[in-house]
Amino acid sequence: MHEERQARVRKNLQAMGLTQMLVVDPAAVMYLTGYENDPMERFQALFVPVEGEPTLILNRLFPDPNAWEHPVTVLADTDDVVAPVAKLCDADAPLGVDKALPAKWLLPLMDAQAASGYVLASSAVDDARALKSPAEQDAMRRASALNDQGMAWLREQVRPGVTEREVAAALEGRYQELGAEGNSFAPIVSFGANAADPHHEPDDTVLEPGMCALFDVGCRADGYCADMTRTFHLGEPDEEFRRVYELVREANEAAEALVAPGVELAKLDRAARDVIERGGYGEHFTHRLGHFIGAEVHEPGDVSSNNHAVCEPGMCFSIEPGVYLPGRFGVRIEDLVLVTDDGCEVLNRYPKELQVVQPLVP
Amino acid sequence: MHEERQARVRKNLQAMGLTQMLVVDPAAVMYLTGYENDPMERFQALFVPVEGEPTLILNRLFPDPNAWEHPVTVLADTDDVVAPVAKLCDADAPLGVDKALPAKWLLPLMDAQAASGYVLASSAVDDARALKSPAEQDAMRRASALNDQGMAWLREQVRPGVTEREVAAALEGRYQELGAEGNSFAPIVSFGANAADPHHEPDDTVLEPGMCALFDVGCRADGYCADMTRTFHLGEPDEEFRRVYELVREANEAAEALVAPGVELAKLDRAARDVIERGGYGEHFTHRLGHFIGAEVHEPGDVSSNNHAVCEPGMCFSIEPGVYLPGRFGVRIEDLVLVTDDGCEVLNRYPKELQVVQPLVP
Repeated sequence: MHEERQARVRKNLQAMGLTQMLVVDPAAVMYLTGYENDPMERFQALFVPVEGEPTLILNRLFPDPNAWEHPVTVLADTDDVVAPVAKLCDADAPLGVDKALPAKWLLPLMDAQAASGYVLASSAVDDARALKSPAEQDAMRRASALNDQGMAWLREQVRPGVTEREVAAALEGRYQELGAEGNSFAPIVSFGANAADPHHEPDDTVLEPGMCALFDVGCRADGYCADMTRTFHLGEPDEEFRRVYELVREANEAAEALVAPGVELAKLDRAARDVIERGGYGEHFTHRLGHFIGAEVHEPGDVSSNNHAVCEPGMCFSIEPGVYLPGRFGVRIEDLVLVTDDGCEVLNRYPKELQVVQPLVP
Repeated sequence: MHEERQARVRKNLQAMGLTQMLVVDPAAVMYLTGYENDPMERFQALFVPVEGEPTLILNRLFPDPNAWEHPVTVLADTDDVVAPVAKLCDADAPLGVDKALPAKWLLPLMDAQAASGYVLASSAVDDARALKSPAEQDAMRRASALNDQGMAWLREQVRPGVTEREVAAALEGRYQELGAEGNSFAPIVSFGANAADPHHEPDDTVLEPGMCALFDVGCRADGYCADMTRTFHLGEPDEEFRRVYELVREANEAAEALVAPGVELAKLDRAARDVIERGGYGEHFTHRLGHFIGAEVHEPGDVSSNNHAVCEPGMCFSIEPGVYLPGRFGVRIEDLVLVTDDGCEVLNRYPKELQVVQPLVP
């Protein structure tokens, strides 16, 4: 499996006119080698030549790459990072560079004249990663099915007196009970006006009748990520909340209905934005429609007006329109979709109809 | 406070012969502006000219920088990132570059000829951050005092039948009950032979009599990080475990006793390593002695044979010798220390004597 992935990357590099690449993104290294490790601030890379064997470069502190059958360069904390990489490079050819390579290593590699030039080449890996294999698709399905169950549990937490922080803190344990590996990202739990900030971090805000409750959450299963958003309302919402909710739902469904091989990603964004603009809330839909996802919760590639690539079977991304009214409320409805041969499979089954939760009379 | 920090950075830049810098590390941006936001894959930066006002560059999705009184450039998801940055830069002068600036932005800035050269300049910010102000020192003390309480709770979990994962998962809630803001990093909980991997991730390993239990954990308080390691033993350890434990403790204490203004950081590493080498376990102490810490759990600067900088009052770093015997056990004992005018203050008070926990007879 990893050999086949490496072969795809070598082919992509050749198509870009490159003969060598340095991969540093830990998720990309894992995709190509099976070696899973977060190096934090230490150096870890995979050097991929188009001809010859790839080399893993690791710190001696990291776990042994037992399953890796190609060369390994092992560094200690006190070793120079640049020289061993420069030694692997062909100094007379340009080096394909991972978009995540930080300046602290890129600038010294340039100073050492490790290559004749430096070219962003992440797409050689990213384009391969964007097309999920059947096994990866199964993992995505399983993670999203568990996330549907997580959302059902969150729905039960919608009651007066709970805080964002306590609900967010309890979610990871709940995922683990369900059989997931925990959160795929720090959960967003936003009550009332906090939901108008798309990236609000859970705080001590208490849920009270008259507030919306937005949950943007995901778990991980078999190493792959789920990511879904639903917005509930505690007590009767006003008329504008209902109108906005229905617009966002319609935008979500309009985009999902369009997903099929050959359709431009920008067109999906346009379809959802059209619905919200027609409803008069265009300026309050402040972000792109979605992002790619897989072993990482945000993978390269987005669903925005800038992305003119077309859908291909095996792509997996989010469809998450939202409307944010500062000081009042926010609504976002997000599913993951998997592009199939003739359309798409929506991986989230949790209902999207507005659920108004009546606070129990004490 | 932030104006004063910016002034220190401008002074450091001038000393490096630079007139402009692009800061992107979110912790560095926060340090200099008070603006706290994790931009994930989106662009966020502070442009700092030596003459004139700094400019924050943000995505429109991010929270408003209400307290920021200088210019702000706001980008949308579909905007080009490079042009607005290039517009701020003096194209005829070199640009100081944050070590964390990823190739995906650095290479396009180079292509756009935004500056006449690109120089790693993070030390201009890092050297300022390394010296904690009295308020920062108080936050570090408070976080470590809470972490001492967290460790006392972990000590109570050392009993047959618990798994690494369940203890690790429960810790964050415990920290919050104690009044901390949660984990400062994903806790390391390692039982038995797992402790021989310094970066082991908690799994379903069950604690049984005859195993060590290593906890490398930290909480956050007032935005600042704690980080401490203690190693316990469930049931009677063998003679070698006791010998290794005492060596590690002696190494920890030898290094801590040396910390004082003017002492080379490399010398602290040497002192700890000497103890472990004399005991015959030098090859099993596989990492540097420590790392700097503050608003981030790993801040620039380490305590290793490579770092010939000297201790200065206000520096805060970890002292964490360890010995790792693959397939058997690992021992690490870590404290945070704060350099004072005439020595250091050890921020962790949790005892370091070996604690052997007797499994209760059922």
